Amino acid sequence: MTELKNDRFLRAMLRQPVDRTPVWMMRQAGRYLPEYRATRAQAGSFLDLCKNAELACEVTMQPLRRYPMDAAILFSDILTIPDALGLGLYFEEGEGPKFRKTVRSEADLAGLASFTAEDDLGYVMNAVSTIRKELNGEVPLIGFSGSPWTLATYMVEGGSSKDFANIKTMAYDKPELMHALLGLLADAVADYLSAQVRAGAQALQIFDTWGGALSAAGYKEFSLKYMQRIISRLPTEADGRRIPVIVFTKNGGQWLPVIADCGAQVVGVDWTTDIGAARSLVGDRVALQGNMDPSMLFASPTRIREEVATILESYGHGSGHVFNLGHGITPGVNPDNVTAFVDAVIELSPRYHQAD
Amino acid sequence: MTELKNDRFLRAMLRQPVDRTPVWMMRQAGRYLPEYRATRAQAGSFLDLCKNAELACEVTMQPLRRYPMDAAILFSDILTIPDALGLGLYFEEGEGPKFRKTVRSEADLAGLASFTAEDDLGYVMNAVSTIRKELNGEVPLIGFSGSPWTLATYMVEGGSSKDFANIKTMAYDKPELMHALLGLLADAVADYLSAQVRAGAQALQIFDTWGGALSAAGYKEFSLKYMQRIISRLPTEADGRRIPVIVFTKNGGQWLPVIADCGAQVVGVDWTTDIGAARSLVGDRVALQGNMDPSMLFASPTRIREEVATILESYGHGSGHVFNLGHGITPGVNPDNVTAFVDAVIELSPRYHQAD
Repeated sequence: MTELKNDRFLRAMLRQPVDRTPVWMMRQAGRYLPEYRATRAQAGSFLDLCKNAELACEVTMQPLRRYPMDAAILFSDILTIPDALGLGLYFEEGEGPKFRKTVRSEADLAGLASFTAEDDLGYVMNAVSTIRKELNGEVPLIGFSGSPWTLATYMVEGGSSKDFANIKTMAYDKPELMHALLGLLADAVADYLSAQVRAGAQALQIFDTWGGALSAAGYKEFSLKYMQRIISRLPTEADGRRIPVIVFTKNGGQWLPVIADCGAQVVGVDWTTDIGAARSLVGDRVALQGNMDPSMLFASPTRIREEVATILESYGHGSGHVFNLGHGITPGVNPDNVTAFVDAVIELSPRYHQAD
Repeated sequence: MTELKNDRFLRAMLRQPVDRTPVWMMRQAGRYLPEYRATRAQAGSFLDLCKNAELACEVTMQPLRRYPMDAAILFSDILTIPDALGLGLYFEEGEGPKFRKTVRSEADLAGLASFTAEDDLGYVMNAVSTIRKELNGEVPLIGFSGSPWTLATYMVEGGSSKDFANIKTMAYDKPELMHALLGLLADAVADYLSAQVRAGAQALQIFDTWGGALSAAGYKEFSLKYMQRIISRLPTEADGRRIPVIVFTKNGGQWLPVIADCGAQVVGVDWTTDIGAARSLVGDRVALQGNMDPSMLFASPTRIREEVATILESYGHGSGHVFNLGHGITPGVNPDNVTAFVDAVIELSPRYHQAD
């Protein structure tokens, strides 16, 4: 494998010294970029784009050509596993993802297709290895998956949901069925992420987009436990280098002390949590990733720079911070404002990493 | 005024001894009840129902005929003030509330109508006095308003929003304009709630539905500060009795320690926070209201009863707990499940109020 030229991101995840705070953005390959929209139009549907390794590689590289990001992230969908399990993922214009079939009974669960990541999601592994080759050691590549709970919400509800009535009814009234589904998904996600590492991923992120819709007790029982199980089964090294894992539960701010014990090296924090307060809560156990409000990118470059300064100051001195947004970038953002964001991190963060 | 026969709710809000934990439900007069749907159909539109004092009184009373709730809550909309300010509230079938005009500039702000609660929202005061009379002292009547930030989100966005891009751009780039709008709304809400007390409201709740979309610092600056200002201006007594105030910020769990200092007697807690942990955080400063997951009402009566038991045990011994859901009841709930919920609170809570 080509030697990694910029390992700032991997080092910060392990709380090793760095020259400045690394930065990347969730959904950095996305609709706010005109070149993304052009490639997407060329591909046909969103899923066609995910399934074409060359085009998935192209959109992964696009933000890196504009901005000196410290990491690339695989371009894919979080719902590839439920699709491979036979539920029939599709997208309706202007609406979220949908499934042709749902899982609401023991029979539905028994009817799911058997799953092996390398066989059934070969197109993802092709994309990972294509991107890794194209990156040529410039920055590390992040692989990812949805969390079991988050995948299950779409599988049980049949798409996006406001109140998660169906899955919560299952969790509350049929906990055995719920745990059977989550266990199956944890196995699949562990296999999927391991395969991504074999294909070339150098760090991993688990997106727990909907864990924050649960009660405090429900979060531990139905979401965190399964992420913990996955992490315990992942390869810890590849090519002699540690593969760090980020867990990101949106709206999980009040549970940070328990999330910090799940085995991940990094905990993602959304913008509703003060990152300095978060650091006090988790101590030396994990690094933190985040957490500028994505809507701040609609503000002026001057205001964006101020906010970056505030977040850097709140986290304070020393390694263990990966700068990011507190959630994915919003489609309507002006790409020039991302320049202001990334430049501010690069210019303002070195002083937090100087030896005392 | 008729003497109040059941003051359990008012006493618990002030952390005075009670025989059992009082209970009511946010949105208890609502679409899950067939009799509500019938009255709503009779009224015409949702706004027609709010503006007709007899029908608003009728739907307010409906849940009390089915369940032994310890409080009634005024039936109204949270967006009455922006409507009275001239923005033109309307509802589209299957979508949220919308406004014909928005407030995005100094000129828009200057163009808002002048506002006096008793003149411009007389229909609300008529509803309050009609309901208070009809209640005949059975249980206290709660008046309410949206918080300034929450009202402003609808006024700036023109309706519901996912990422609040317009109002956040205003907050970040034009903070003077944002504060001018929030100040105007704080004046209006203080006037509105004071008028509700004069018309007969015996307790007040401020619904801060969207405060949780802000950053930790933004929440204090743009939402909490204005609720604090309102509370400082409200009448503290009527007919020789204290008028307690509840502040409820959805997704505000991680900010409970600062919310507890805003001057409210009660802090509402959504279901993502463990209520025992919340009690530890706020100590003796405030009472707590909440916090069963509204989706638990889709589960079996047995499971609902277990959850009520868990929440009572988590809060523990002593007064200062008003049982409620962690958010408004969901339209599709079976009314019989509400019976299971209320009965469980009534049957299981007395032991937490016995003298040691």
